Amino acid sequence: MTVFDVSDRSRDLRARLSAFMEEHIYPNEGEIARQIAEGDRWQHLPLIDELKPRAQEAGLWNLFLPPASSRGGTYGAGLSNLEYAPLCEIMGRVWWAPEVFNCSAPDTGNMEVLARYGTPEQQERWLLPLLNGEIRSAFSMTEPDVASSDATNIQSSIVRDGDDYVVNGDKWWTSGAGDPRCAVSIFMGKTDPGAEKHLQQSMILVPMDVPGVEKQRMLTVFGYDDAPHGHAQMTFRDVRVPATNMLLGEGRGFEIAQGRLGPGRIHHCMRLIGQAERALELMVERAGQRVAFGKPLLGHQHVREAIAHSRMEIDQARLLTMNAAHMMDTVGNKEARGQIAAIKVVAPNVALRVIDRAIQVFGGAGVSQDTPLAMMYAQARTLRLADGPDIVHTETVAKVEIGRQAGARQSFGGARDRLFTEKRDLLQRDAGES
Amino acid sequence: MTVFDVSDRSRDLRARLSAFMEEHIYPNEGEIARQIAEGDRWQHLPLIDELKPRAQEAGLWNLFLPPASSRGGTYGAGLSNLEYAPLCEIMGRVWWAPEVFNCSAPDTGNMEVLARYGTPEQQERWLLPLLNGEIRSAFSMTEPDVASSDATNIQSSIVRDGDDYVVNGDKWWTSGAGDPRCAVSIFMGKTDPGAEKHLQQSMILVPMDVPGVEKQRMLTVFGYDDAPHGHAQMTFRDVRVPATNMLLGEGRGFEIAQGRLGPGRIHHCMRLIGQAERALELMVERAGQRVAFGKPLLGHQHVREAIAHSRMEIDQARLLTMNAAHMMDTVGNKEARGQIAAIKVVAPNVALRVIDRAIQVFGGAGVSQDTPLAMMYAQARTLRLADGPDIVHTETVAKVEIGRQAGARQSFGGARDRLFTEKRDLLQRDAGES
Amino acid sequence: MTVFDVSDRSRDLRARLSAFMEEHIYPNEGEIARQIAEGDRWQHLPLIDELKPRAQEAGLWNLFLPPASSRGGTYGAGLSNLEYAPLCEIMGRVWWAPEVFNCSAPDTGNMEVLARYGTPEQQERWLLPLLNGEIRSAFSMTEPDVASSDATNIQSSIVRDGDDYVVNGDKWWTSGAGDPRCAVSIFMGKTDPGAEKHLQQSMILVPMDVPGVEKQRMLTVFGYDDAPHGHAQMTFRDVRVPATNMLLGEGRGFEIAQGRLGPGRIHHCMRLIGQAERALELMVERAGQRVAFGKPLLGHQHVREAIAHSRMEIDQARLLTMNAAHMMDTVGNKEARGQIAAIKVVAPNVALRVIDRAIQVFGGAGVSQDTPLAMMYAQARTLRLADGPDIVHTETVAKVEIGRQAGARQSFGGARDRLFTEKRDLLQRDAGES
Amino acid sequence: MTVFDVSDRSRDLRARLSAFMEEHIYPNEGEIARQIAEGDRWQHLPLIDELKPRAQEAGLWNLFLPPASSRGGTYGAGLSNLEYAPLCEIMGRVWWAPEVFNCSAPDTGNMEVLARYGTPEQQERWLLPLLNGEIRSAFSMTEPDVASSDATNIQSSIVRDGDDYVVNGDKWWTSGAGDPRCAVSIFMGKTDPGAEKHLQQSMILVPMDVPGVEKQRMLTVFGYDDAPHGHAQMTFRDVRVPATNMLLGEGRGFEIAQGRLGPGRIHHCMRLIGQAERALELMVERAGQRVAFGKPLLGHQHVREAIAHSRMEIDQARLLTMNAAHMMDTVGNKEARGQIAAIKVVAPNVALRVIDRAIQVFGGAGVSQDTPLAMMYAQARTLRLADGPDIVHTETVAKVEIGRQAGARQSFGGARDRLFTEKRDLLQRDAGES
Repeated sequence: MTVFDVSDRSRDLRARLSAFMEEHIYPNEGEIARQIAEGDRWQHLPLIDELKPRAQEAGLWNLFLPPASSRGGTYGAGLSNLEYAPLCEIMGRVWWAPEVFNCSAPDTGNMEVLARYGTPEQQERWLLPLLNGEIRSAFSMTEPDVASSDATNIQSSIVRDGDDYVVNGDKWWTSGAGDPRCAVSIFMGKTDPGAEKHLQQSMILVPMDVPGVEKQRMLTVFGYDDAPHGHAQMTFRDVRVPATNMLLGEGRGFEIAQGRLGPGRIHHCMRLIGQAERALELMVERAGQRVAFGKPLLGHQHVREAIAHSRMEIDQARLLTMNAAHMMDTVGNKEARGQIAAIKVVAPNVALRVIDRAIQVFGGAGVSQDTPLAMMYAQARTLRLADGPDIVHTETVAKVEIGRQAGARQSFGGARDRLFTEKRDLLQRDAGES
Repeated sequence: MTVFDVSDRSRDLRARLSAFMEEHIYPNEGEIARQIAEGDRWQHLPLIDELKPRAQEAGLWNLFLPPASSRGGTYGAGLSNLEYAPLCEIMGRVWWAPEVFNCSAPDTGNMEVLARYGTPEQQERWLLPLLNGEIRSAFSMTEPDVASSDATNIQSSIVRDGDDYVVNGDKWWTSGAGDPRCAVSIFMGKTDPGAEKHLQQSMILVPMDVPGVEKQRMLTVFGYDDAPHGHAQMTFRDVRVPATNMLLGEGRGFEIAQGRLGPGRIHHCMRLIGQAERALELMVERAGQRVAFGKPLLGHQHVREAIAHSRMEIDQARLLTMNAAHMMDTVGNKEARGQIAAIKVVAPNVALRVIDRAIQVFGGAGVSQDTPLAMMYAQARTLRLADGPDIVHTETVAKVEIGRQAGARQSFGGARDRLFTEKRDLLQRDAGES
Repeated sequence: MTVFDVSDRSRDLRARLSAFMEEHIYPNEGEIARQIAEGDRWQHLPLIDELKPRAQEAGLWNLFLPPASSRGGTYGAGLSNLEYAPLCEIMGRVWWAPEVFNCSAPDTGNMEVLARYGTPEQQERWLLPLLNGEIRSAFSMTEPDVASSDATNIQSSIVRDGDDYVVNGDKWWTSGAGDPRCAVSIFMGKTDPGAEKHLQQSMILVPMDVPGVEKQRMLTVFGYDDAPHGHAQMTFRDVRVPATNMLLGEGRGFEIAQGRLGPGRIHHCMRLIGQAERALELMVERAGQRVAFGKPLLGHQHVREAIAHSRMEIDQARLLTMNAAHMMDTVGNKEARGQIAAIKVVAPNVALRVIDRAIQVFGGAGVSQDTPLAMMYAQARTLRLADGPDIVHTETVAKVEIGRQAGARQSFGGARDRLFTEKRDLLQRDAGES
Repeated sequence: MTVFDVSDRSRDLRARLSAFMEEHIYPNEGEIARQIAEGDRWQHLPLIDELKPRAQEAGLWNLFLPPASSRGGTYGAGLSNLEYAPLCEIMGRVWWAPEVFNCSAPDTGNMEVLARYGTPEQQERWLLPLLNGEIRSAFSMTEPDVASSDATNIQSSIVRDGDDYVVNGDKWWTSGAGDPRCAVSIFMGKTDPGAEKHLQQSMILVPMDVPGVEKQRMLTVFGYDDAPHGHAQMTFRDVRVPATNMLLGEGRGFEIAQGRLGPGRIHHCMRLIGQAERALELMVERAGQRVAFGKPLLGHQHVREAIAHSRMEIDQARLLTMNAAHMMDTVGNKEARGQIAAIKVVAPNVALRVIDRAIQVFGGAGVSQDTPLAMMYAQARTLRLADGPDIVHTETVAKVEIGRQAGARQSFGGARDRLFTEKRDLLQRDAGES
């Protein structure tokens, strides 16, 4: 329980979501593993298709869309970021659960972009089927040949040609492209290489089935291919799409990226916290069952320390993330950019530490397919890189802090700066005789 | 700004307190250093005596006492722990500031004990002058000859003899005993060595001027003697006090200790966060002024990383502490014992890391008398030991977590435990052919 | 260059081995990846079969066997542990390279057991084909149902029945069992459950093709199945082997385990250091090629710090490992047990930190199949568990240190213990007046 | 015991030195504390004067001077850096012990400068009395007003005027200046502000008693004034010294600094390792004596972990330092600059971690005057700043490593670089069908 338990609606949804998880998700983890292992790895999973209507009926559908983010109508549950955060955490406890509730990345981010910036036509064609869970989507930004942590490096091109745009480029880490229902990707590339740095890039909707769009190969994360979702390396060769597929307008790619990434990061972080909680639970459970050197692992102090430090780190990361959500709701994504950057650094690192401790308590089982831990580790590790590596967000936190202090110092008229000068003079007088 | 900014009263007090700090505290840091350096180190400081009435007039006095803690009348400002927390943080920014507002340790804890457990006579004799800032007090629990982290080790004796108790024992780290106005100490010792472990100890009020009470020496913390406050090693030899000085009753020492330490820990933690904020401010300020290798220190990435990590750690520690305060206010100190233990581990360690980074940015000045950093470090280091070392609180966090999960697991009927067994069976079948 | 560069023979072998790696190993990493990806994953790799005779011709074969470890003749190159260490490091740079030189785990440990403890018949039947690289072998110790970090937990049974032993048990992490040429496993189990704890266990040679030996499934390590080597979960059901397959004698399983694990740990650690060096090389190479925010990654201070800390940690881990090898050569494995335990904690953790930093520098490529980093990470992570988890070895280091100091203190007659008592008395006198 | 135990002479000296420590140093720690506490804190200590002739008689005098470092005759014991290292470690165990053997900083560095670069006259006037322990010396480089981590920032001036130089500047952290026998300081300042950056600075001998040299005040280090040695803030106002006091020649200050700092760093690091060993001994001793929660502290796993990690870190730091010493002896200080930089980062940080753990085991006693731990911590902390902060040396390690790899890569003809390109092509082909 935290001070953040503020809304009855959120509390009610949380109870229903937890019950759904107990009834339909946790008991099916084995079945999902079986469905993936059997037959074609790159087909969508029958069980998820069964569970989606149940989640819809239970009113646990499209919970992610904040009210402010829609243009041309309200979609989704209309929860604030702060209300959605604990729900997102709970879904994050099982890697395939978010899709059951139509709350999985990258679809949530893409739906938010379409809701916020899409034209009525774009919304009709792509947003509605996404909201209904009929299609899925991808996001093509990162490129194999440049350090994409610096988004100005993106080299792909989007060139106007009559009523069309012609799209060219190599992309990778196009997550979700493995799913056969993935119907569209938001593609980032340069419309004007000669423009000011932050106005060169645009985002455009590229259907997955137009000529010239090809999946070259699926990438692995540690040894996982994450089928059937998957991470594709793709080529776009002279891909022609109607000019109406442009999002918001030429040169506004950065603006969209900023708007898209804030909530996306909150979601990632809450899911990571859910994974860390799950890992902690498994750690405690295992430590109560296994015996070494004459007593259960819980009887060993270093295991208890692992549990305690995990609890302390998770609680801090959760409070930080919920506070960031609260800031986004109250002062806006731009003002909250320092807080958003902070959780993007903190949450994956906390999750990794907690999961790693759980692996250590499990021994060999921890790195194997018998627990979700190794896969959770691989996913969390990726999130120290995806959407910008740690150092990029660390720099943002520093920049915001330095700016904040520069402002504050000015308003105090430098009174404190004078202090040290005075103090030194004083001490020099005092010490003169020694 | 955090979600915890809830009460207008707290917000108003914060503004007034900050203004007082700017006007009366920061500009006088040099003067206090001078008053301590000159003449007898163990006299109270004239400047603090001047500032106390101003703080009283400004309504910034005895802010610490939560309403629930008083018996026989309301004392202090009646703020909740959550309301007091940010005020305590601000005072903590300068080591001698809390005394100006009559909010300094160990007096606050002692006043709380007296307000909560004292008889009307005890309150009249000791609590009122403490609330008025006329006398100061000490707390004599830790002993040099035993590991006092395990409070059952305490060896001092308190023996009934007619209408008196006779007190004997060696104590050290009796903080505040150096102040000439320190009039009374709360003394912990065994009244019944044969009783059940947690009923052996009692607490009794021992005036500092009765025969048999002697300060043997003042202890140093790193090289600081913390004059005029100080930390005494003391002997109590056949010290005779009236039986009415007993607090709450024989055998209730542990009960009082529990009640005393919760709020005390919150206060320590908030002050530590204030120190960490101060250190971060100094770090940023210095890094903007000094030039190395052709650019200001702020131009060096490792300095910016130091700033960013400090910001992220402080924010997490603050949220954790405020959440613990909120828990104390809403579910009580006992239910919040896990949260209280957690901040007692987290806050000193965060403060030490931040201060240490600031020292590194300052170079030689950072370890010297020219900044408050080295002294802040020494004080924060002590708080990884005082009121229980890290490991004791870490064990508490683990114990609460393990208990919580044991409860939760039972209520889910073990559904999740079954999962892994099933899953393993499944996977064994699958893998049989490989 | 270190002080450990002492033997000309070792230096010469190192030069030849490095040349072989440049000529035959590094250029074939892509080809090996292809051979594993194509067709049946669980066949041995043609390229390795081609390279093995070349390594033999080049005199780079069986370099691992220390002279002291053989009974009934000298096998291998007769290098000391200190001489072998740098060679083992070089081979470790590519995960499949050690097999080319017949120096791969678990064969090396098994060969050492057979050379040291095997009967002439056992040596003829198993050791010679292993030394010739004609067969491979496995080691079956860890069990899925107990915490095998405490080897006394091992539950499998080995029961004498006439001229045979009947072997029963469940084992997992039987590494190398995936290779079709794996012909024999050293199996650990209880011959006398009623004996004193360290005399209950025995080791026996179990051919892989006798009835009752079954691979249940292959385990994954962070998604990798490590084909064609692999890690099997196995069942042994009423497996009957001749009594002459017993190693050293009933009840001597622990003794063999101790003898086997010392050199095995040195080898693991040196290979880890080789992997860490490789990761550092890749990190520097990549950081010189990629540009972000207007300069190569090498121009970013946090990347240079990653490089420097990796260099400092690797150098320390290597010196510690070589010193342990030197101790094993000069005072014996038993006396060196503290040093061996220390490197078993240090080397995997250093390797993990270095590889993790390299992954971070590579971004998405680092977790994918495009670099060896993710697989190296998975393998190194396992070595914080295999052959005993960190905490078991940490406890050994502590135990040796405490014992050493207890001895040393006695020999000084407690002079230093007296000091503090004296000093305290002194200081108490001094401080009496304060 | 390590592989570095190579010289009989070093081993013999070590035995004699340890015996001297047991007989004359450890038993006198209390007495030294008393002599400092009584009377004038800034007088030299009678006991040290008594012990110095004994050390001379015992042949334990001036052990530090490597043979190669002298011009115009051999001084000192003629030990190599590797031979001296373990002796320096032993002396470092007690902060005041090095002076007894005439091996204390900054005298050792100054003597080495004079032996290596001094004229016969300079050697006669300053080196001989220093070698005899008759006078002491200081080193004035760091300045309060600039970031001295970047030595090009040094602002003091040294201006030729006829047969004299006129010296002006503010210096601080002039260590040793508190000692009344401190007779001379090596002063760094600019002779030619217009020259190329590394040729602007010079070093000159400034006697402490010439007009214009003034101690402004003594600096504290975490509250310690380190009397009678002390760290002075000094002013040099129009100080006139004969031109013959110039060392080596105008513009060669950097060259001398480089030559001086290598051995000085080795010495600091070995003393730090001695302090860490001492702290570990105290930790083990205390943990065997104190009882908490029903068992000695040694019975608590987290204490054993503290012991084990300290042992592992100390052993690594020692091996790294001895290897650096060996490199200096064999390839020279310049080639070994990466190794020297590495130990300057590693040793203080290891010492701080070990001492901090010891403090935690001691509880309140650990931060007080009752153990040497708090003072050891303060001194070790300073060494993360003195002679360059961690980051400066970390940058050196990175620079050397990047340069080394650039060289190595060239010599392999880029074979390995090609690998990844190939491998990616291959994998792209493979994955094309997925």
